[in-house]
Parts: sequence; C-alpha cells; structure tokens
Amino acid sequence: MPIATPLTTLLGIQHPILLAPMDVLAGSRLVTAVSRAGGFGILGGGYGEGAWLEQETAKLAGLSVPFGIGFITWSLAKRPELLDIALAAKPSAIMLSFGDPAPFVPRIKSAGASLICQVQDQAMAQQALDAGADVLIAQGTEAGGHGASRTTIDLVPAIVDLAAGRVPVVAAGGIADGRGLAAMMMLGASGVLLGTRFYASQEADGADEAKRRICAADSGSTVRGIVFDLSRNNIWPAPFTGRCLVNDHARRWIGREVELMQNVASVAADYAAAKAAGNFDVAAVIAGEAVGLIHDIPPAAEIVERIATEAEQHLAGRRNSIVSAA
Amino acid sequence: MPIATPLTTLLGIQHPILLAPMDVLAGSRLVTAVSRAGGFGILGGGYGEGAWLEQETAKLAGLSVPFGIGFITWSLAKRPELLDIALAAKPSAIMLSFGDPAPFVPRIKSAGASLICQVQDQAMAQQALDAGADVLIAQGTEAGGHGASRTTIDLVPAIVDLAAGRVPVVAAGGIADGRGLAAMMMLGASGVLLGTRFYASQEADGADEAKRRICAADSGSTVRGIVFDLSRNNIWPAPFTGRCLVNDHARRWIGREVELMQNVASVAADYAAAKAAGNFDVAAVIAGEAVGLIHDIPPAAEIVERIATEAEQHLAGRRNSIVSAA
Repeated sequence: MPIATPLTTLLGIQHPILLAPMDVLAGSRLVTAVSRAGGFGILGGGYGEGAWLEQETAKLAGLSVPFGIGFITWSLAKRPELLDIALAAKPSAIMLSFGDPAPFVPRIKSAGASLICQVQDQAMAQQALDAGADVLIAQGTEAGGHGASRTTIDLVPAIVDLAAGRVPVVAAGGIADGRGLAAMMMLGASGVLLGTRFYASQEADGADEAKRRICAADSGSTVRGIVFDLSRNNIWPAPFTGRCLVNDHARRWIGREVELMQNVASVAADYAAAKAAGNFDVAAVIAGEAVGLIHDIPPAAEIVERIATEAEQHLAGRRNSIVSAA
Repeated sequence: MPIATPLTTLLGIQHPILLAPMDVLAGSRLVTAVSRAGGFGILGGGYGEGAWLEQETAKLAGLSVPFGIGFITWSLAKRPELLDIALAAKPSAIMLSFGDPAPFVPRIKSAGASLICQVQDQAMAQQALDAGADVLIAQGTEAGGHGASRTTIDLVPAIVDLAAGRVPVVAAGGIADGRGLAAMMMLGASGVLLGTRFYASQEADGADEAKRRICAADSGSTVRGIVFDLSRNNIWPAPFTGRCLVNDHARRWIGREVELMQNVASVAADYAAAKAAGNFDVAAVIAGEAVGLIHDIPPAAEIVERIATEAEQHLAGRRNSIVSAA
C-alpha cells in the first residue's frame, strides 16, 4: 500500500522520499539508486563545477525514472550557465536552495521542469511561491549542512499553512526513518527530503570513514555554526549556517570565530590538508541531527524501501489502534 | 473514537493531552478545566510558594478526575516540605523537571502517586528511569519557559528508543494542535504536554495582555536565552535556558548578557517595575515556538476537545488515503 500524496503525483514517483542534493556526495550513482528504488534522486549540483556536472548528468542520460538536479541559488547566480547543462539532462525538477529563485524560473519552466524551492522561513516561502515554485521544502535547523535556525516541528506546519494546499510541502531536517515520514505527513507534509540518511549509503560519493562516523554518532552530537565554512574560506550569506558532526576542530574553534578569522590563512591551510588526508578530527563530516537514528551503511534502495514500509506500517497501525479503542 | 495509549491507561484519562505545570499560570482553575475535559491538568508548583500551594491544592480537593502537581526539581530540593503539601492533595502523579528526581521518589511512590519526569536529553532520561520514573516527558527546545537545546523531532525518537516500551513517553515543545499530537504519536510518543496553548486559555492565571500577545505572535518570534532570568535575578543551573516572546527588552540585551550582569541591580529594578505594571515590552511573556499556531483564547476544555478531535481525524484520514492509494 504505497503512500500517495500530491508530491508523488506531481513528480511521478512511488514513494514520497527525496534525496537531498548534497554537494559532491549526491552524484549520479546515488541519484540513480534512489530514483530506481521509487524515491526521487536529486543530483548535488552544489556550488557548481562545470566539468563535474557535465560528467554526472551524462551518466543520468539513460535513466528511465524521474530525477532532479539541485543548486545553491546564490552560487548558481555567479555561474548561471550551469543551469543549461542541468536542463539539457532533462530532469523532472530543478531544486534551488538559499537565495532568490526568480531569475532562474523562466528557463526552468520553459524546459518543462518543475521548480522545487527549499526554504527556512515564511518570507522565503512566500518569495518562492511568488516566483512560481511547484514544491516547497521546509527545512528545519536539524538538517545537516547549510540551513537556518527554525526547527522542523515549528517550520513545517507554518509552511503548510502558508502554502494552503497550492503546492506540496516537503519536510527536511532531523528525519531518517519511517517514523519521521509518518510524523511529517501528520503535520501536513507530502513527503520528506533526506540528506544524512543517504550519506550513510553505499552509493554516496563520500569517504568510508565519514560514513562510519555518522553511524557511530549519537543523537545530539552535531553542531550548527560557521566554523567549518570559515575554515575552508567559504563565506555564506546570512542567515545560513552549517551543521556537522562535533569533532576536535569544532570543539577548538566554536565560540572563537573572530580569532579563527584573524588566523584564517593558517587555519585554512591546515584544514585543507586534513581534508585531503581524510582526517575527520579536523575536516567536517557534514551531517544532521538524525545521526542518532543511523546505524548502518546499506544500499540506498534498501533505505527507501525501509522508510516507506515503516511509514506505511505506522500510519496503518495507528488507525487500527484507534478503532480498537473505540 | 478516543485515542488510547499506554499513557491514557496509566493515568486513567480520556485524551493523551497534558497541561504543562506552568509556574503560577497553571493554577487550580486551569488544572480543573483540563482534567474535567478529559486531559490531565498538572498544577504549576514551580519554585514553591507554600501558601499558594496550600490554597490551590485545597481547591483541587474535591476534583473527581485525575490531576497532577509539578515542581522544579532543583528548587523543590531547597524546600522539600512542599512535596508533603502536594501529596496531601492526593494527585495521581507528581511531575518533576530540571534536576535529579531520586531524593523525592520514596515519598511519591509510598503516597501512591506516579512519577512523571521531564527530560531534555538521554542522560537525564536514563537518570529518571533509574530513579523509577513512570512516565518520561521528552521536552524539545521549542518549548516555552525553561528547557535545553535539543529539538523535539530529534529528542522524541531518541527517548522513545531509550525507554524501549518500559514507560510511556510524552512529547513537549512546539505542539499546539491535533496535527502535532498525531505527529508525535507517529514518532512513538504516547501523548503530548502543552504549555503555551493552555496559557492562551480563559482559565490560565495570566495577564490578558500576555495572552493577546501570544495570539498575535508569529511563528519564529520567540527566543531562548538567559536574559529574562538574569533580569529577575533568577539564576538557573546549566544547561537550562528560557524561551519567551521577543520583546524590546530581549532585543536590547540578547548578546549583551555580561553587560546585563554588570548592571543587574538597575536592570532588575526596572524589570520588576515593568512586570508589576504589566508592561510586556520589558517583562517577558514566557511562550514557546508554537505561538504561530495559536490565534484565540478559548476555554481550556475547548482546546482539549479540538486537539483530540483533530488528531483523531488526521490519524484516521491518513489510513484512508493509504487504502485509497492501494
């Protein structure tokens, strides 16, 4: 009994489970695995590397199931030609996050793709709706990587109420299992977008050690801030910050951001060296608060199947418990 | 078709909806209204005023439905005799928050009352279980008033997994409607505890202007910090901070806590005067992130009924949508 929602209808997918377009990690291999399993894979276009995007979209060319391509909006604005590479791959949707989507909408719509906009508050949601978004992703602060401060349980109903049924709303941030999908559906969401859960999958293009650290991390062992962005000389516009696993480097610098900026040349050199060496005591493992729910590194298809099945059981089981209590 | 859970069975209540024991606000009038409506009212014992507690528990003496009494644990430790006043009122449960419950357990249990412990992370939950807690309340950072940093969507599944079915888990923080109750049940909770939603009720012993400000506030207009505690010379132990509506005073002092402490005598005098005058541009309206979901000041019984009915509809409706999609 698959879960049908306005989102599954719009995207033509079997399960309301979307892959977050994690920069580099969500390559064509992971997108293919998620989409073939009945979810919706979204390629991590990220900051925009033309060569990487050409290579990965080429690998998606023969894919017979729907998929999307995601960008960091403010970064795409610096290299708008990347959108042409993306649209040439015939994605069902383009996902834009962190910035004004309006400049890109005409090209996206005329290519026949849907527009998915990730938002972190009501003002951004209104901006996205005004620009013509077909789907809103309400991203709570629990999410790994970049985001803002409002929490998922607070933000999702607020965006659902704002959207008022005009477009499907997808919940992101802190969700990694079927309980989370079922809970978000109760709040009025039409699906979920998952990053960290798919990071710890066989097909994610990430380091094995990073995946192992996600599996080992307890709930409560991530932190949101700007230390890892400062440490790689990657300055984001406000109000966006990044969440990652707490490690030695985070413990050393959180609360000392000004001092870090004053020493950024040497810190950044050390950070880059650590990243190249796969030293995750220094380099950040970008991950969300759902790490506590993640204990293995299965194939992505198994993740989709598990979450869908568990959510269906929870939704069905509750109904039964009400009946039996009547 | 009322929602039956291990919590409703344990407490002998009709709806899995608990009133947060808000200091002063949750007096006998509000407790009576919530419990008579089929929820579970918990008197706000708070910091402990002997005379107030005697007076309010006397008014609960004839109540024919279950109710509880709540305390701030670290404050109760300074005046443990207050627990005797509470237990003399024959509550079904004592709720303890913010501190080690162990010293109070023998008296609570020998009086035949259940022990409800509110926790903000797994270590506190384990401490409460070891002490003999009969119910755990997993309180997310979205909650109004005192709490900690973990979010509801992150914390609830973590505490549910830790409890492993041994005791019911109740979700608190960011919940004010039936969607929230239904969502928390999907995460494995057996019920919800609501503060801010009941603050904006006719029976809460709060200022009308404070209730009006809760109704007017948008989602995202609360802040967690220590400014209001500092301003009333009320120092809490770490890791606890307080959430309230953002007002002029909060805007003025957040980020300047050290300076506030350096000027605490004059700030506290001004704050006390503003509080006495009902000036909520300075005095804090203690409220959680659910303010965006609250738009009216109905009788508490109507709140209980609305939430129960909406949750039942959501839980039942989803089941139907799955069936129709099969």
